Amino acid sequence: MTIDWAALERQCRRILPARAVVAQRQELLAYDSDGLTLHRHQPPLVVLPETTEQVAALLRLCDQGQIPFVARGSGTGLSGGAVAEQEALVVATSRMRSILQVDLDNRQVTVQPGVINSWVTRAVAGDGFYYAPDPSSQVVCSIGGNVAENSGGVHCLKYGVTSNHVLALEVVLPDGTITRLGGDLAEQPELDLRGAFIGSEGTLGIATAITLRLLRAPQSVAVLLADFASMEAAGEAVRLVTAAGVLPAGMEIMDNFTVNAVDDLFGRDEYPRDAAAVLLVELDGQEREVSAAVELAGSLCRQAGARTIRQATDEADRALLWKGRKSAFAAVGRITPTYYVQDGVVPRSALPSVLAAIERLARQYGLPVANVFHAGDGNLHPLILYRADEPGVSDRVQQLGADILRLCIEAGGSITGEHGVGNDKRCYLDWMFAPDDLATMQLVRRAFDPQGLANPGKIFPTPRSCGESMRRQVDLQQQGVTLPVAAL
Amino acid sequence: MTIDWAALERQCRRILPARAVVAQRQELLAYDSDGLTLHRHQPPLVVLPETTEQVAALLRLCDQGQIPFVARGSGTGLSGGAVAEQEALVVATSRMRSILQVDLDNRQVTVQPGVINSWVTRAVAGDGFYYAPDPSSQVVCSIGGNVAENSGGVHCLKYGVTSNHVLALEVVLPDGTITRLGGDLAEQPELDLRGAFIGSEGTLGIATAITLRLLRAPQSVAVLLADFASMEAAGEAVRLVTAAGVLPAGMEIMDNFTVNAVDDLFGRDEYPRDAAAVLLVELDGQEREVSAAVELAGSLCRQAGARTIRQATDEADRALLWKGRKSAFAAVGRITPTYYVQDGVVPRSALPSVLAAIERLARQYGLPVANVFHAGDGNLHPLILYRADEPGVSDRVQQLGADILRLCIEAGGSITGEHGVGNDKRCYLDWMFAPDDLATMQLVRRAFDPQGLANPGKIFPTPRSCGESMRRQVDLQQQGVTLPVAAL
Repeated sequence: MTIDWAALERQCRRILPARAVVAQRQELLAYDSDGLTLHRHQPPLVVLPETTEQVAALLRLCDQGQIPFVARGSGTGLSGGAVAEQEALVVATSRMRSILQVDLDNRQVTVQPGVINSWVTRAVAGDGFYYAPDPSSQVVCSIGGNVAENSGGVHCLKYGVTSNHVLALEVVLPDGTITRLGGDLAEQPELDLRGAFIGSEGTLGIATAITLRLLRAPQSVAVLLADFASMEAAGEAVRLVTAAGVLPAGMEIMDNFTVNAVDDLFGRDEYPRDAAAVLLVELDGQEREVSAAVELAGSLCRQAGARTIRQATDEADRALLWKGRKSAFAAVGRITPTYYVQDGVVPRSALPSVLAAIERLARQYGLPVANVFHAGDGNLHPLILYRADEPGVSDRVQQLGADILRLCIEAGGSITGEHGVGNDKRCYLDWMFAPDDLATMQLVRRAFDPQGLANPGKIFPTPRSCGESMRRQVDLQQQGVTLPVAAL
Repeated sequence: MTIDWAALERQCRRILPARAVVAQRQELLAYDSDGLTLHRHQPPLVVLPETTEQVAALLRLCDQGQIPFVARGSGTGLSGGAVAEQEALVVATSRMRSILQVDLDNRQVTVQPGVINSWVTRAVAGDGFYYAPDPSSQVVCSIGGNVAENSGGVHCLKYGVTSNHVLALEVVLPDGTITRLGGDLAEQPELDLRGAFIGSEGTLGIATAITLRLLRAPQSVAVLLADFASMEAAGEAVRLVTAAGVLPAGMEIMDNFTVNAVDDLFGRDEYPRDAAAVLLVELDGQEREVSAAVELAGSLCRQAGARTIRQATDEADRALLWKGRKSAFAAVGRITPTYYVQDGVVPRSALPSVLAAIERLARQYGLPVANVFHAGDGNLHPLILYRADEPGVSDRVQQLGADILRLCIEAGGSITGEHGVGNDKRCYLDWMFAPDDLATMQLVRRAFDPQGLANPGKIFPTPRSCGESMRRQVDLQQQGVTLPVAAL
């Protein structure tokens, strides 16, 4: 069936004000990719609803006309999830930016999906509260996007990912029904579809109101920076700290390449340039608890071979230490015209061996790889550096990315920690899940979306898009080719 | 369609050894109710599989013959969830009691569903680990049952409910397919059906292997007992402790009735008999952290008006303080021939007003109510005491129970904290959820179970079973009757 986009545009204009319907070619350009620029496709039509009712009316149109739709927040995602890969209506939430209710007594806030992550904390910080999940993109990314991707951040080691902080959702289903998932209470009668929706990457419907749990700002926060002569030593420090029963708020590692990129960006030697690895450890809680933990974590870092350990002296110093980490992607972006971020997860114990294997792969492919990662979670973010104008480089980059993910899986890990599957990683999903497991997920997806209109082509492998990759894996196995991970 | 139970029995005997098929009337008696004896129905056939493959074979039989089935663990549930209300095959997991794998490096253990809750901690305690969720019935209840009901316990205030501690599930779907939900990693690609399955009360399939997260036993644990001259003062202590940012491992309240019942049971005055309320606060963590928290919590209890505060002096003393709380249901059971436990949740701030309203209702109905509850969570367990041989009492008890739940909902709470909906509370589900919300849940239930064979009649209101209760609500509203909650 061919979709009559001009007719759909007219119908949308009956629901929305003129400025909320985008159909001009040059304006549509802004919607052709997300933060992962590897996959681009310009949608025929973008709508910018402001209310739940408008979203419901739009999805009813889609339901009646069998029109695929793609929900989009700030477009900072890194797996292509908000990109309309085929002809689809893009429903952007950038005009749904109201904080609907702040309820400090019950420590919760309800927001529209387009509200920016950092706005939530800003709205309640004066009263001593904050919203815990903090992706690096928190000053631009939207809460709706965080829900779609079940986003993490440097503090998810201690405080968990988005799923642990969303109490309830108002959702418009693909047929236009408005429904509520979850509730204000931690203990809610069944079924817990809140959990299934969070991280479903826009494939079950569009969240139009999101109730978030607030945390009390900790009484005391300390940040330690330790630098190491080898990545193994830094990994050992992470292992020792965790084994001692200390649960840091965050525990992050940057490799030598990234450390230098960050120092270059800021034009001063904030981090030691000759360090093989820099480890940041944040500890928070009651004052006495924090000072005890700082002492213990510091001595364990020394035991693991830290060359120097520095503790942030005050709030400003603490912000400075974190600023480098939070700017790491930008700092690397300054050196290379383009990079491709991977998002693999491995058990903490496998970190050193997997990092060594990634280095070997990088040399093999002739593509530099910088490593910045949530060490406490074992969540790696290898950045593959490349020039997009080099012929054939895109395939090589994706191949290296795939090999890195295979390393992660064979080490007992996962193909994504927090960036989602999107279209970028769908062809690897069957490396992790048996056909029956994928079929069970599809059952639920189809229950929400019988016509398959919500973000089609995302998450799940399809023979059309993944046929070749599927074949390649089989070929490799038949040829007896062993991927480098066998050494782990 | 009438089911030929004799034929089914023969088919089951082809799959299972003789001792694993129960069809004798007197043996079936043991399966006619769960811990809530209000609803009884004897099933025609019970099977006791030992392996996943046997469960799959049994469910394939059910699928082919359109035979309803009910999964059953230890039968300690309190909402009738494991009772076969209509003619159905009961699949009991009491022979699936193997601990399949202990993986201390990754802090997890995989068990069969019939494994008893307390066995998990027993298996790993020597290595300094434990499994956190601890329902009062933990020495008899099964992990499979905990998964079905998403059970809590006194420590779920700090550590969360079962859902927060189950990493992965092997599940047999109603058509006999074996599938895996979730994974070993905290961050897993989509869809998160693990969360939807936990707490689904046997309506989506049968879990045959469950991977649990283990926690390190805390370095230090302290227990405080504070007693108060009024319930309001005890509630205020809970409020002050929480507001100060202290997160106790557990915070439990018993009322005067329960305190005396427990003292009677043990034949000595462990708790002060004249206290209107006794509050137990457990604090755990690093030694320094705990001693600071004990000091703070103690002074806040005094500020709220505690008459005496006692700290357990050692491990034995600590166990003694908890023993009373954990035996509270049994102690009340010694006084009354029968009781009906409710399981409502209210926001912490509404605790005093809801408890006062429950007292008024109890007087109105002429039925004594004892209160034992997870104060930190706002999870009430009012025990309605009655004699089953009193004519018409069962209806009055259920009516009082319903009115208590209505109080909870109108205070912004929920009809169940941890005991589930089962058949006992299904008629109240539409007090909490709009028809579209219930329809969304049904969509997912039907996706897992298109024939509606898995634990039919549970959770969701049906016109047949709830018609009268539904009508009654409408009648009351039409008559302008205001339930007592209006006073809140």
